Amino acid sequence: MEIRVSDMMAEEIQLSDAERVTVDQLIPIKKYNKGQVLLQAGEVAKACYFNIKGCVRSYQIKDGEERTTQFYVEGEPIASLLSYLNKTPATHYLECVEESTLAVLYYENEQELYSIHPKFESLCRTSIEQEFGKQQEILQNYLTKNPEERYLMLQETRPDLLHRVPQYHLATFLGVQPESLSRIRKRIALKSRS
Amino acid sequence: MEIRVSDMMAEEIQLSDAERVTVDQLIPIKKYNKGQVLLQAGEVAKACYFNIKGCVRSYQIKDGEERTTQFYVEGEPIASLLSYLNKTPATHYLECVEESTLAVLYYENEQELYSIHPKFESLCRTSIEQEFGKQQEILQNYLTKNPEERYLMLQETRPDLLHRVPQYHLATFLGVQPESLSRIRKRIALKSRS
Repeated sequence: MEIRVSDMMAEEIQLSDAERVTVDQLIPIKKYNKGQVLLQAGEVAKACYFNIKGCVRSYQIKDGEERTTQFYVEGEPIASLLSYLNKTPATHYLECVEESTLAVLYYENEQELYSIHPKFESLCRTSIEQEFGKQQEILQNYLTKNPEERYLMLQETRPDLLHRVPQYHLATFLGVQPESLSRIRKRIALKSRS
Repeated sequence: MEIRVSDMMAEEIQLSDAERVTVDQLIPIKKYNKGQVLLQAGEVAKACYFNIKGCVRSYQIKDGEERTTQFYVEGEPIASLLSYLNKTPATHYLECVEESTLAVLYYENEQELYSIHPKFESLCRTSIEQEFGKQQEILQNYLTKNPEERYLMLQETRPDLLHRVPQYHLATFLGVQPESLSRIRKRIALKSRS
């Protein structure tokens, strides 16, 4: 069955038939290949995405090395907000870790949606508030936890991620070398057995 | 001169006289003492704030020690979003580092504002998007920078903060011991002289 953004939105707000058609025109769904780059650092982000299927990561390059800063899986919005909103160069890359199906919202289409009806703005506000809230918790956790504690937190909150993404990406995301990630895993396995 | 939220909003959106009165009733401005706690971990956050004058910090307690997770100065919104939105226990404290003047937005008043006119929702959406964007950059920086690089970044982006807040709070915010912060400062001073 073909997926439509209007069907996903219908769970949250009432849409007329005409509004459904508009939504599906303004927020198309596209497929991307594994390894495909959605955004390059230095470019202006022209779109936000909503992950329907697959996995996308954001990363920065530091000292010639890729440092993963976030993973986005099913049900998660992907936005390089400051670049998207202010037309400034992005500070990171977005790359598909797996073949991915994403709803694509271009800036101009977003503005058009809001001009059609305030309820889209309301939907967007509540969604972005929740994401912002989650991001606040993530940042807090990074400030107060060490790599092993971060790993345990991921295990609790996003267990799928631990086995789904390449371990060298996971290591930079946790802020450690791949060897240290192995050690952390072994230590946790030992503790859970005892 | 008395400060009113309606005057601050008038720079962003057009407000009728009646709307101005409503805004000022629904978003009062209050003064808080240095050291006053706005939110305790475990409580539900009943309000968001906008910092008009002063400095507020958020912190968590880990191993009996306070770890500062953010500082909020003039012009910055202060929101414990997940708790405020979902009525869940907050994971952190909010405390005034200085005597502070804050605009206070209670949850119910926020909903009332939106029901009055969509333009408040629009103003709120655009403001929260910008804040979210900044937060994304902060998180990215934490993931890819070491404490010295974080210090240099603060020096560039929020220089006032470095001398305004107690050094032991600044140290935990950078993720180092106070002694390390002194060393980082000396190292940077030496480099800038050479």
